[in-house]
Amino acid sequence: MHVTVWNEYVHEQQEERPRELYPDGMHATISADLREHGYDVTTATLDEPEHGLTEEMLEETDVLVWWGHRKHDAVSDDVVERVKSHILDGMGFIPLHSSHESKIFKALMGTTCELSWREADERERIWILEPGHQIAEGLDQQIVLEETEMYGERFDIPEPDTLVMVSWFEGGEVFRSGCCYRRGSGKIFYFRPGHETCPIFHNDEVMRVIRNAIDWAAPVDGPDVQFEAVEPPLESLDE
Amino acid sequence: MHVTVWNEYVHEQQEERPRELYPDGMHATISADLREHGYDVTTATLDEPEHGLTEEMLEETDVLVWWGHRKHDAVSDDVVERVKSHILDGMGFIPLHSSHESKIFKALMGTTCELSWREADERERIWILEPGHQIAEGLDQQIVLEETEMYGERFDIPEPDTLVMVSWFEGGEVFRSGCCYRRGSGKIFYFRPGHETCPIFHNDEVMRVIRNAIDWAAPVDGPDVQFEAVEPPLESLDE
Amino acid sequence: MHVTVWNEYVHEQQEERPRELYPDGMHATISADLREHGYDVTTATLDEPEHGLTEEMLEETDVLVWWGHRKHDAVSDDVVERVKSHILDGMGFIPLHSSHESKIFKALMGTTCELSWREADERERIWILEPGHQIAEGLDQQIVLEETEMYGERFDIPEPDTLVMVSWFEGGEVFRSGCCYRRGSGKIFYFRPGHETCPIFHNDEVMRVIRNAIDWAAPVDGPDVQFEAVEPPLESLDE
Amino acid sequence: MHVTVWNEYVHEQQEERPRELYPDGMHATISADLREHGYDVTTATLDEPEHGLTEEMLEETDVLVWWGHRKHDAVSDDVVERVKSHILDGMGFIPLHSSHESKIFKALMGTTCELSWREADERERIWILEPGHQIAEGLDQQIVLEETEMYGERFDIPEPDTLVMVSWFEGGEVFRSGCCYRRGSGKIFYFRPGHETCPIFHNDEVMRVIRNAIDWAAPVDGPDVQFEAVEPPLESLDE
Repeated sequence: MHVTVWNEYVHEQQEERPRELYPDGMHATISADLREHGYDVTTATLDEPEHGLTEEMLEETDVLVWWGHRKHDAVSDDVVERVKSHILDGMGFIPLHSSHESKIFKALMGTTCELSWREADERERIWILEPGHQIAEGLDQQIVLEETEMYGERFDIPEPDTLVMVSWFEGGEVFRSGCCYRRGSGKIFYFRPGHETCPIFHNDEVMRVIRNAIDWAAPVDGPDVQFEAVEPPLESLDE
Repeated sequence: MHVTVWNEYVHEQQEERPRELYPDGMHATISADLREHGYDVTTATLDEPEHGLTEEMLEETDVLVWWGHRKHDAVSDDVVERVKSHILDGMGFIPLHSSHESKIFKALMGTTCELSWREADERERIWILEPGHQIAEGLDQQIVLEETEMYGERFDIPEPDTLVMVSWFEGGEVFRSGCCYRRGSGKIFYFRPGHETCPIFHNDEVMRVIRNAIDWAAPVDGPDVQFEAVEPPLESLDE
Repeated sequence: MHVTVWNEYVHEQQEERPRELYPDGMHATISADLREHGYDVTTATLDEPEHGLTEEMLEETDVLVWWGHRKHDAVSDDVVERVKSHILDGMGFIPLHSSHESKIFKALMGTTCELSWREADERERIWILEPGHQIAEGLDQQIVLEETEMYGERFDIPEPDTLVMVSWFEGGEVFRSGCCYRRGSGKIFYFRPGHETCPIFHNDEVMRVIRNAIDWAAPVDGPDVQFEAVEPPLESLDE
Repeated sequence: MHVTVWNEYVHEQQEERPRELYPDGMHATISADLREHGYDVTTATLDEPEHGLTEEMLEETDVLVWWGHRKHDAVSDDVVERVKSHILDGMGFIPLHSSHESKIFKALMGTTCELSWREADERERIWILEPGHQIAEGLDQQIVLEETEMYGERFDIPEPDTLVMVSWFEGGEVFRSGCCYRRGSGKIFYFRPGHETCPIFHNDEVMRVIRNAIDWAAPVDGPDVQFEAVEPPLESLDE
């Protein structure tokens, strides 16, 4: 299983609190955890040529984890098309937190993916709705994050194929925090936590969800689908 | 559109607070609102012969609204079978609140329909997830109930065909409060509010949801489905 | 209910068989049927300024019916964005047949929307899977088209929110022919029939489906959704 | 992974053709294939005490494969309740073919699970709709069975959580042949093939699907869900 962790890597270089939490970037923290648990991991960031997402790189990637926020527009349309094509061909995709507004997530969903929000370091309770889902493996009924940014409904997404988690926020909102989608041959899991000024990716349960999601989203060696004229017909049309 | 409102009608006869709120029973309060809005309504209660749900009665019912709690087991299995058969044949069904554990809802869902709860008169915010759904007509983004019983996830139901509402509770829980299902030719909308010691059915927005759900669940005059041996085949098998 | 019927209107002007079947274009035939059944209808075609889909026009449209095939690429990206925005805001959308590859349908689905096909004038049986769905009103269990183009699976779409119809083809294929989606506040029904060299839109049952779909996709006056920072919090964060 | 294969085991003892195809019963043929592929398998049949499905047996079972037809009514209600309880607690369940009308499948679905049929040894083409699904691993785009019983829509089931396969039949029908459901903590895959007078379970692709479905339906060690009063509240209600 080869995982690529992509990070915009802007906040951690420009702001104090994110740098303290993630001195080498969120991608480094996430990757370290994954490697510890036996995954083969590469990282890529916005500033690399082709944002580090070359055709060769994607060809070798089973699951792509994505964190973006301030620089969504700086991701080139060509790279977005390339990533989308790989996802539809079977690569798993795990957009985190503010990646709900990334070009690639919006292109896959077909909606605005907008939401309400509040930065007030309030408490979040992520409730697991589907205890029998692969992504719930090893979890308790809820994950509590003592201080985080709020995301609230209406979250403008297509209804998830499976809704695994819903968050409760201290200030009064709810949010669909763990959403599974199948698009083309690829599997997508949007996971809400990940605000850059909170130690979210140092939380064991959050990382457990990410690892479970990677396992769930791994490509399947299914039928080689042809989109073409079928001639002659499978069944005779002679009669 | 003919609506039947069924009520167990026990709390309102035996306990003070429910009697104050609903002197003639919750079914009377709900029916009065529906009639005011132009619906043709009949009521039925547990103590009537066949619980008021005779074959003739159901034959004339387009949508059945249901409230039960303490006496789920007192509903006869024959009546449950009869109601289920009418739902599968196209009658709409709106189980309210504690009806999540009614025999009829459990028989339609195939799961335990259990949940967590707390009676502490806490605040509930019912968030509308799907603003374009027929059941959201005329609503605001949330319905706030200042004092109500809490219901919390895990709610052991099949994933809804459409999840229209999720509730936030002051004490920390979330709950899938407005759930659409299609079973057989019938449409079902489970709606959470309705605790007997709170004036829930005197709330205009709650009643608006119930009326919207009745409109949504109205029977459709679709194909007359046959379950039988198809002989001779539609297409020749001669070749 | 105001319906706009959009047609590429190329085949009927350039090829003999389509012109015979639809001398004034498919949009004229479809519109005539809708008007007969009491709908208020406007038509629009590719060659009009802004393809006939101005902001004013879309503002007044409840449901947009769409037929395109050869000239998908000639539809301007600006108009596609405008149409998409209206759909997400609640306008119904009914893409027909070869519109599966229109820019607007692909943008809403997020997938390639590709499929297999064969032009051999073979028999199609459209089976109604959901007899209780509004779009099945007044239909029989199947619609038989004696001669049509074949579309076969794999159809690269997101799994429909509700799958209402599946087609059987004489040559051996199946196809998801009637697919409901909810995107933003809008409702979408993809309907397969409509090949330009067959008298599909002269078929009463096909037109019944289109009218049912229009009724189903009509906009709802739901909550006015805000995507914004929520300050101050609904609940106090003081504790 | 421990699999239990349950078989009614009536046709193979009473009729010539099933006996020729499955001299030791279909359960023996299915089990042999599973053992060859490394699964730990036990079998159980109707005539054993408690139909071979004791509490101890189910406690050790990860996934239960089920074939029944003529003797659905002979399965005791107590055993059905016990099996259902284990499925809701996380045991996988793979009902095959005529098991669509078994007590246990109907109890889980909440609908009649009826369908149309024809015994005419006609051709079936099982199309894979979801090439990226775990159950499609290693398959081609279709599985062709040259001679089998026909099952046709309307199949009276809840809309599947994921529809993986749809069948085409020579005589003109289609059928939802591979249907995934999540109920409680358990996963269910209904798979259509398996007529007792055809060598269906000697077909490598059919057996591949069954093995894939077993892998997909394996239990997950998720949250230990409590259905109970939550006191005191997680969050203080003091304010």
